[in-house]
Amino acid sequence: MIIILKHGATEDDIASVEEKLQEHGYQPNVTRGVEDVIVAAIGTPSLSEKEMVAPQLQALEAVEKVLFVSKSYKLVSRESHPADTSFKVGVANGAANGAGVEIGGAKICVMAGPCSVEGREQLMTTAKAVNQAGATVLRGGAYKPRTSPYDFQGMGLEGLQLLAEARAATGMPVITEVMTPGLVEQVCEHADVLQIGARNMQNYDLLREVGRCRTPVMLKRGLSATVEEWLKAAEYILAGGNNNVMFCERGIRTYEPSTRFTLDLSAVPAIKKASHLPIIIDPSQGTGRRDMVAAMSKAAVACGADGLIIEVHPHPEALSDGQQTLDTTQFAQLMRDLKPIAQAVGRTL
Amino acid sequence: MIIILKHGATEDDIASVEEKLQEHGYQPNVTRGVEDVIVAAIGTPSLSEKEMVAPQLQALEAVEKVLFVSKSYKLVSRESHPADTSFKVGVANGAANGAGVEIGGAKICVMAGPCSVEGREQLMTTAKAVNQAGATVLRGGAYKPRTSPYDFQGMGLEGLQLLAEARAATGMPVITEVMTPGLVEQVCEHADVLQIGARNMQNYDLLREVGRCRTPVMLKRGLSATVEEWLKAAEYILAGGNNNVMFCERGIRTYEPSTRFTLDLSAVPAIKKASHLPIIIDPSQGTGRRDMVAAMSKAAVACGADGLIIEVHPHPEALSDGQQTLDTTQFAQLMRDLKPIAQAVGRTL
Amino acid sequence: MIIILKHGATEDDIASVEEKLQEHGYQPNVTRGVEDVIVAAIGTPSLSEKEMVAPQLQALEAVEKVLFVSKSYKLVSRESHPADTSFKVGVANGAANGAGVEIGGAKICVMAGPCSVEGREQLMTTAKAVNQAGATVLRGGAYKPRTSPYDFQGMGLEGLQLLAEARAATGMPVITEVMTPGLVEQVCEHADVLQIGARNMQNYDLLREVGRCRTPVMLKRGLSATVEEWLKAAEYILAGGNNNVMFCERGIRTYEPSTRFTLDLSAVPAIKKASHLPIIIDPSQGTGRRDMVAAMSKAAVACGADGLIIEVHPHPEALSDGQQTLDTTQFAQLMRDLKPIAQAVGRTL
Amino acid sequence: MIIILKHGATEDDIASVEEKLQEHGYQPNVTRGVEDVIVAAIGTPSLSEKEMVAPQLQALEAVEKVLFVSKSYKLVSRESHPADTSFKVGVANGAANGAGVEIGGAKICVMAGPCSVEGREQLMTTAKAVNQAGATVLRGGAYKPRTSPYDFQGMGLEGLQLLAEARAATGMPVITEVMTPGLVEQVCEHADVLQIGARNMQNYDLLREVGRCRTPVMLKRGLSATVEEWLKAAEYILAGGNNNVMFCERGIRTYEPSTRFTLDLSAVPAIKKASHLPIIIDPSQGTGRRDMVAAMSKAAVACGADGLIIEVHPHPEALSDGQQTLDTTQFAQLMRDLKPIAQAVGRTL
Repeated sequence: MIIILKHGATEDDIASVEEKLQEHGYQPNVTRGVEDVIVAAIGTPSLSEKEMVAPQLQALEAVEKVLFVSKSYKLVSRESHPADTSFKVGVANGAANGAGVEIGGAKICVMAGPCSVEGREQLMTTAKAVNQAGATVLRGGAYKPRTSPYDFQGMGLEGLQLLAEARAATGMPVITEVMTPGLVEQVCEHADVLQIGARNMQNYDLLREVGRCRTPVMLKRGLSATVEEWLKAAEYILAGGNNNVMFCERGIRTYEPSTRFTLDLSAVPAIKKASHLPIIIDPSQGTGRRDMVAAMSKAAVACGADGLIIEVHPHPEALSDGQQTLDTTQFAQLMRDLKPIAQAVGRTL
Repeated sequence: MIIILKHGATEDDIASVEEKLQEHGYQPNVTRGVEDVIVAAIGTPSLSEKEMVAPQLQALEAVEKVLFVSKSYKLVSRESHPADTSFKVGVANGAANGAGVEIGGAKICVMAGPCSVEGREQLMTTAKAVNQAGATVLRGGAYKPRTSPYDFQGMGLEGLQLLAEARAATGMPVITEVMTPGLVEQVCEHADVLQIGARNMQNYDLLREVGRCRTPVMLKRGLSATVEEWLKAAEYILAGGNNNVMFCERGIRTYEPSTRFTLDLSAVPAIKKASHLPIIIDPSQGTGRRDMVAAMSKAAVACGADGLIIEVHPHPEALSDGQQTLDTTQFAQLMRDLKPIAQAVGRTL
Repeated sequence: MIIILKHGATEDDIASVEEKLQEHGYQPNVTRGVEDVIVAAIGTPSLSEKEMVAPQLQALEAVEKVLFVSKSYKLVSRESHPADTSFKVGVANGAANGAGVEIGGAKICVMAGPCSVEGREQLMTTAKAVNQAGATVLRGGAYKPRTSPYDFQGMGLEGLQLLAEARAATGMPVITEVMTPGLVEQVCEHADVLQIGARNMQNYDLLREVGRCRTPVMLKRGLSATVEEWLKAAEYILAGGNNNVMFCERGIRTYEPSTRFTLDLSAVPAIKKASHLPIIIDPSQGTGRRDMVAAMSKAAVACGADGLIIEVHPHPEALSDGQQTLDTTQFAQLMRDLKPIAQAVGRTL
Repeated sequence: MIIILKHGATEDDIASVEEKLQEHGYQPNVTRGVEDVIVAAIGTPSLSEKEMVAPQLQALEAVEKVLFVSKSYKLVSRESHPADTSFKVGVANGAANGAGVEIGGAKICVMAGPCSVEGREQLMTTAKAVNQAGATVLRGGAYKPRTSPYDFQGMGLEGLQLLAEARAATGMPVITEVMTPGLVEQVCEHADVLQIGARNMQNYDLLREVGRCRTPVMLKRGLSATVEEWLKAAEYILAGGNNNVMFCERGIRTYEPSTRFTLDLSAVPAIKKASHLPIIIDPSQGTGRRDMVAAMSKAAVACGADGLIIEVHPHPEALSDGQQTLDTTQFAQLMRDLKPIAQAVGRTL
């Protein structure tokens, strides 16, 4: 059940709606938009919603209307929040001179950086290069999910500290992956956006934990997750009270062997129709091929994506898994090529 | 084995290469490009190529170099023909005032029209509307592949005649599907481009038959065909001597239920890298959703596709399977929206 | 619409039903079972079935009941024919001393032989070995579908003649693939079962053509065909009047690379529930791995398959694609291992 | 690196190998088999294995041979441990009168019970019924992974306590899912086997945590995990020192809509070839259809599975997602039907 308040609803009005909901066993979740205040009622109490609670809510002065959302994602759905959502990342940590970087606005957000943080020099060199080329968020893995226990598992805390250092040096907010509930607090201390990786899209305890904090979250699509499962996974985070969630399409698993995954760009209009939240495209992971990153980045911008996340490294040829990584020159060229496409769809880069 | 001739090679030079190949049991296939003449040697004679034939060919005055192509697609590969291929459709039938329409050139080719030809009025109305909006090729099914034997199987010959009539009225060349070897001749008589449907991508006798004629062919990707299988299927057509082949990505089968198929746009850079032939995108079939056709069309143009094929109908809401069909107003809007994107990637529409 | 006649219905009764249907624009298709006579009405005439035709049919003395089948497969469905269908193959060509071999009966039918017919000696050696080990149908490809035009395309007519010779020598009926409508007649002359390959499952003109002849057909599942599409493809054959159709599951295309395809054994209960027709399993193609053929054959028999089709060759190690082929000793061992499993599910081998 | 010790190697011999490995920066993992002692060396120290460490190990009296395993799963691989592994579950908690239940032995282990623990009566009724029918392990979910945050998430600790109560009443060891590292200790206190669900197959922190405890683990295959990724995920657990791991195939995600997942039975021979660990089949989740559970259970036993895990409930028709659940009568019938198949493959039930 979604309760939309009238324009000009006061905090007292909101409180009275919350009270009424709690009285009937619901947990209220308030979203204060630029124009509207929306209250989502979470939970399924024993009394029938339509028969008992809805009329009482409707009777409140400040309530514009009461919607019944049958889908199992409510807060995430565009029905509950018709306008596009945008939010800033990095404000708390003083990124971009304290202004932060907007996700979901007119300016397309390009996140770039190395797959893994390997050391200070590698990270700083990359951060400065991508920043100069126009990237506004720095990506870098400190904790890495690896299919084999014998592979390098990331620099951990030291990697997080280097990312914070790179933010200080460039002004770019940083995004990094968090893999387990026990590390959410530590990662929140250093990062501006928490990335939930594809393998953890349905790690529900992790979703609940990032739902409890207030750091923005990028939720990657599971390797074989349907769009609906992905929306429901995001609902776990919003239901916890963290509304700053963006989706990230990173390729799905299909039978095709010429690419590492199949980048499903139709997820962009699918998410845009179903939800108000922003969507980012990962053409590096999504194809696994350096020679496809540019083409797929252009396609992503053209079809309405709100951002890109791209692997960049000073020397990708030296990496064991660098076949999907751009060097800094290739990245700078891509940024120049993307500009006219962004303009063609009424956005900036 | 691919033999590249020197600039300025004469017809006599070509003939001597052909002769030498035939002498050793190969079938020569000559491609006369704007700059180069290339001869592909088809067949695997008993003598070892490298040891016997290649030096004899290399010894010929006009031969620039001899390439050994290990892949099982040779004529289709970019190795054998490094420059992009473009060709005209409709010239023979006087389309576009005899000038025909170029596929694979700087101008992106938009093919539009109804899924099935239903009658004269429906076809003419649609043809005129899409022509006015900027489409340059008319699509329409006369013979329709249907999963059920009890569904409408298309108007057949009468549908072909209506298509030819629509070409006469609008100047647009027509593309239509041919499903079986026995009808290739009939369809060639009326149509300007033969479409091989996804279900027939590996119908090898049909591929051989369209390889024998000289009407251009659009080869749709099979529902679960790999890029490599698709290239090899095209090789069947080129090996028959018909070099005017374009690919068409129309969505692959995956687990995702929110779209009818998953449109694999990474097929565009994949085909562009592997082959010199043009590639067209079908966003209607590829998504099965009208509300995604515009976004996916924009993405296709941005990532380098040479054309689009789009289902348009005056009254899509009246069709049993019209959920992926644009009406003529939506199509005209899409054409306007695509123009700046085409320009942003250095092309026209 | 399915019309079930009363027990003891005469040929005159059947004729009167047929007449009534034709009068209303339907094409009648009569199935004479051991116990029942069933008439399927094919076509969708303009008059509403329920309102006009059904009462008239119901009024006929010999009509037991009239069923409305909403699915687009009627003749294939178990609704239209509740009992299991079985039929004999090879009777016309005198196989098994004129008795033929039953498909869909209590005895599980094992079809074995080489992937391709390569020559007389190879075929005869294999045929005798598999016959001695207990196989009752001989498989062998004369016309081969190949992804590359440069691969061996089969011995063609000569291969068919060798198969007929092997039948004469061993008494085993032969099954071989037919790939195009123009060759159906030729293949029917030599073979006892026509195989429609996976790539041709939706080659509708081919399906119609084999529907017109009376040679039994094995319809392989398309590489990414749903069970429902497969049933509808079979309906094309039955709608043509050829009721002797068996399905063959041969692996579907998935993301898993350790097997060539993923053998979907749940297709056995799925087909058994939806249809009355027999189903055969191809563990050779379905896994692409010799070391899995035995395990998957056992599983197939245990879950209710009516037969197996297995690639056997005297020297599989000498074949370019022999990695899924058993040698004759391995095949004989498998036949011994299958016997107790067949018994455990109440069948023989 | 895998070090195989000579027959009769003493604890002192083992200690000297361990010492040598630790000296060179490896972590030793000792497996004491019935016949052999095997030491796996985990870690990649800076010195080249072959040049430095291997000769020193080989020089030790008790070392039979030193193997270099190139795969990124070592402990899990059959190369490192050629004989089948079997182990007992429930011994610590006194199940089966203290004898425990063997997994991977000649007797096929059937685990049965409700999807979720709903209450004492439901669990006790089911436990007693499946026990009487021949099941030897009780399954039941206390913590449930749900795609929607608004669905019932399981009884949690209370559910675990009820499972322990049911074990006391029936003697059956219990298996239940653990979803997050923080709950491993609690679940270990009550359960005999820890289930890692499909969505958590690559939740590496959870895998490491269950690797640290000594309770046996059932590792379900991820929805789109390859066999190789699954083996590597198991390696995380064994690398932590917990060797009692069994795999569970529960259906993979494909395009086919008639089943909820596609049960990949070829995983049985694939796992048996690659690994020494047992494999269990889940026909309930794997098909999502009650009417397929029996057929797929028979197939699983026939192709070599070591066990089955089956959803059983006294009143499946009352459940919201009961379409894949057998009632107790159906389960008892299935157990009778499986017996002769187990015998046919040389096992008992």
